[in-house]
Amino acid sequence: MAVPRRTSRDIRSESRLDALHAVLAAGETTRNEIAAATGLSPATVATVVGELIAEGIVAETKLTIGRVGRPTATLTMNAARGRVVGIDVAETYVRAVMFDAALNEVASVEEPRDEHVHDPASVVEGIGRALDNVLEQGGVTRAYVLGVGVALPGLVQGASGVSVTVPHWNWHKVELERLRERVGLPLIIDNPLKVIATAELWLGRGRYCSSMITINLGTGVGAGIVLEGRILRGATNSAGEWGHSLLVLDGRECRCGRRGCVEAYIGAPGIQQTLREIEPGHPLADLTMQRDFIDAMAEAAERPDPDPAVQKTIERTAYYLGSALADLVAVINPEIVTLTGWTTWALGEHLLPATRARLVEQAPGRSADDLRLEVSTVRGNSVATGVATIALERFLTDVGLLTTRIPLAL
Amino acid sequence: MAVPRRTSRDIRSESRLDALHAVLAAGETTRNEIAAATGLSPATVATVVGELIAEGIVAETKLTIGRVGRPTATLTMNAARGRVVGIDVAETYVRAVMFDAALNEVASVEEPRDEHVHDPASVVEGIGRALDNVLEQGGVTRAYVLGVGVALPGLVQGASGVSVTVPHWNWHKVELERLRERVGLPLIIDNPLKVIATAELWLGRGRYCSSMITINLGTGVGAGIVLEGRILRGATNSAGEWGHSLLVLDGRECRCGRRGCVEAYIGAPGIQQTLREIEPGHPLADLTMQRDFIDAMAEAAERPDPDPAVQKTIERTAYYLGSALADLVAVINPEIVTLTGWTTWALGEHLLPATRARLVEQAPGRSADDLRLEVSTVRGNSVATGVATIALERFLTDVGLLTTRIPLAL
Ligand SMILES: [Zn+2]
Ligand SMILES: [Zn+2]
Repeated sequence: MAVPRRTSRDIRSESRLDALHAVLAAGETTRNEIAAATGLSPATVATVVGELIAEGIVAETKLTIGRVGRPTATLTMNAARGRVVGIDVAETYVRAVMFDAALNEVASVEEPRDEHVHDPASVVEGIGRALDNVLEQGGVTRAYVLGVGVALPGLVQGASGVSVTVPHWNWHKVELERLRERVGLPLIIDNPLKVIATAELWLGRGRYCSSMITINLGTGVGAGIVLEGRILRGATNSAGEWGHSLLVLDGRECRCGRRGCVEAYIGAPGIQQTLREIEPGHPLADLTMQRDFIDAMAEAAERPDPDPAVQKTIERTAYYLGSALADLVAVINPEIVTLTGWTTWALGEHLLPATRARLVEQAPGRSADDLRLEVSTVRGNSVATGVATIALERFLTDVGLLTTRIPLAL
Repeated sequence: MAVPRRTSRDIRSESRLDALHAVLAAGETTRNEIAAATGLSPATVATVVGELIAEGIVAETKLTIGRVGRPTATLTMNAARGRVVGIDVAETYVRAVMFDAALNEVASVEEPRDEHVHDPASVVEGIGRALDNVLEQGGVTRAYVLGVGVALPGLVQGASGVSVTVPHWNWHKVELERLRERVGLPLIIDNPLKVIATAELWLGRGRYCSSMITINLGTGVGAGIVLEGRILRGATNSAGEWGHSLLVLDGRECRCGRRGCVEAYIGAPGIQQTLREIEPGHPLADLTMQRDFIDAMAEAAERPDPDPAVQKTIERTAYYLGSALADLVAVINPEIVTLTGWTTWALGEHLLPATRARLVEQAPGRSADDLRLEVSTVRGNSVATGVATIALERFLTDVGLLTTRIPLAL
């Protein structure tokens, strides 16, 4: 694959995207404010806002008459333009979230998944059912939906085709076509790490810095990488698989089959194993549901007399996390690292100080001196949000407003 | 730092750069061939080639009269346009290489450096002397030199200013100004990892793939990362410090002061330590000069009855290298990884098969399935070549042909 050439069409597309981000970030704004926020010339803003209004993406809501000059129009996203749905297919659940076209959440459903059942037919049906249910809950028919995005763990797109590589899953192009049929709407499919990076780019910090990494902490762990406002995908859409980079050579067995992966230490089951190593008979060590375990850890840490084994597990996890983040900082040298995912929502504030200390100690040279390490400002399920955002981007591309090259899974 | 906006000026600049790369790669070419090689329209090629000729960068050397149509002009780089000098300041030597404007090497000098002397005055004087000597050897005065590039280990440019962070070196802006004075020519200074990536981009594989990593193996080790034709620099110019990412948590002490860094295992002293661990009294284990040690290892491996301890050291080093490369592949997912540096020239072919096997085994999912792992095609001292290339880029920017934002150290 050669380096794609940018054209003046791409530049106009980027101006539209900048203006759109400015409207989204501000909620309500004006043409002048967009020019100030984006650095685009007033003439360019006038043109691109006109295009966004013509396609019904942005709406002019009211006119404010100032004391001098012409009245100023207030601009917002046109929420009523339609709906987009983001579906997060995890190993233990399927979550479908419906958003209006201003990316406000309007409905959501979550259904448990039997993590031992992963034949294509049942996974596809689970996704289809979640979509049907969220449409029903949101009170709209398919005709009102602009697009659907599905995040599938381990989605890879290489020279040898498209596939989903999850341990034990064995999906190929044909299953993805079956999914498209079941959904019956414009569909994009992407890898969760690309999706959390997109959420951070549209709704979080990504747009305001030249390099950013978002770390997802849950059952699995991974990194979404944004460089100069673009998602780093890599040759086969597998960039960011930091969860399966080495933390300890020949260390703990990872569920991917290799040894010593970062995930085997800071994925939820890895944290539980650390507790088990610190105090084998600890009552939390035997909880069978991962999210219950993480919530119980947070609860124990917040007690007035915190459990020493829990404390020590959190310290040790921060040591692992800080060490593993230092490796990412060594290679990418980002301006900012944000943490997301359900382990972050529960334990993030407990992990952050010791993680930061270890990261600064371990990152090479001065690469972490000016680094910001923060809990992500994109709350909720950032996988569902991110993949819905990609579905919206795809819609904008289809109506000719963007040239963003969104990789198509099908 | 916000995301830089691309302008139509940048697009024209990229077209010029594409045309220039096509001329450089072909040696001799024509306008039609440039259009075919770059995908630029014939009209654009005509314009940019005209600009390159007007500035004396490209020369029309002869006309070939075909059987039909107009005569075809042969284009080459205009080697006589002037000279550029690249200076590689390593811990054990200073090497200055002079190139003509077609990037052919025309002279070079190497002077040993006492690695225990790193006060700014002596390092600056060492660089100045190497420059004077290479000018003398090349038989030109400063007036004929378009620019000088100096690669300084650990050069960092952050919000807190410019500095050189090498263990025991303690340089700040003032020393860099002293260097500029001593050189007395247009000067750029950069970090060696950015420089090897630039060499690969101009003269190697970088221009022909969307993502590439070049690994430098010597005393230290590091990665130069090229994404979509651009060098990944990071927030403080420290991206690619993979040599100081973790291979073994709490492992061997690294000279950077941390433990378990990749460099402590596959830097030349690390390889020697591996041999020492395998056979403590081995004669090669006591060689005091790193390059002698690496050369002796290669020689021992090439004997008809290879030394088992040497064999085992090479296998173990390949295991470390493959594991550490797998981490880079996990995060960046590049199309190609090339190896360079003096350890590569000596031992690369011995290391490659086992390194590749370990890399494929250890990289997550299918991210290494289509990956190419090769010894770099940019031979010689790629640090000197790369930094001379940046000096040439800088010259092209100064005469208005490029908009490439080359970070200035001073
Ligand atoms: Zn793993
Ligand atoms: Zn180190």
